[in-house]
Amino acid sequence: MPGAIVTQFINLIEARRVPDALMLLSAECEYDNVPIGKVTGPEQVGAILGPFVGRYDEVDWVVHHQVASGTADEGVVMNERTDRFRSGDRWVELPVMGLFLVRQGKIDLWRDYFDLATLQRASQPA
Amino acid sequence: MPGAIVTQFINLIEARRVPDALMLLSAECEYDNVPIGKVTGPEQVGAILGPFVGRYDEVDWVVHHQVASGTADEGVVMNERTDRFRSGDRWVELPVMGLFLVRQGKIDLWRDYFDLATLQRASQPA
Repeated sequence: MPGAIVTQFINLIEARRVPDALMLLSAECEYDNVPIGKVTGPEQVGAILGPFVGRYDEVDWVVHHQVASGTADEGVVMNERTDRFRSGDRWVELPVMGLFLVRQGKIDLWRDYFDLATLQRASQPA
Repeated sequence: MPGAIVTQFINLIEARRVPDALMLLSAECEYDNVPIGKVTGPEQVGAILGPFVGRYDEVDWVVHHQVASGTADEGVVMNERTDRFRSGDRWVELPVMGLFLVRQGKIDLWRDYFDLATLQRASQPA
């Protein structure tokens, strides 16, 4: 099921196992942070995700709703999340909706919608 | 099906039939533009949506993907859209993801995720 692949991907990010998470992406996977821009392929995704996740002591992506259609061979998954990152005593929180297109058992597109100013405000040192 | 209710709602907005669209909302419907804030109930939704839609000559919400689960009695619908608004010769375009919770045949929550700065830039006079 396509939703299970996305859930596994998010679980691996929460475990900060980024190389394992990247194994769930297709070779041509597009990762689009809508207000920032997009990159292509697991290596470029890892170059963003690795340092970002590595910066924090704990990663907790709370999935409020997730809906999927199709199959693992050709599927669409969307979720509403609060992506939370802890640094010391402080949590950074970002409300997000994400779209994942699954092709042949891999995530072929990951597109996150959020407000950039909210992320920038949340990320500022206290 | 809950997806059909959301599709009908969007079609009515595109037809700029806001009062008819509001009939598809529950009495307690929450409308949350995540980076801006939320209002409650069809009257308050109409107070936002009516003037906004009325400001434009044409409204075209392109749904790229829509996924639903559950029933019209208790369902979850999510979509990825480009909300387009024409004023004279000029189109304003906003990339959006939306979440809709459907309860007893009505939309009980509508939450749109987008980048506020993108909307502000797009809405500026040319």
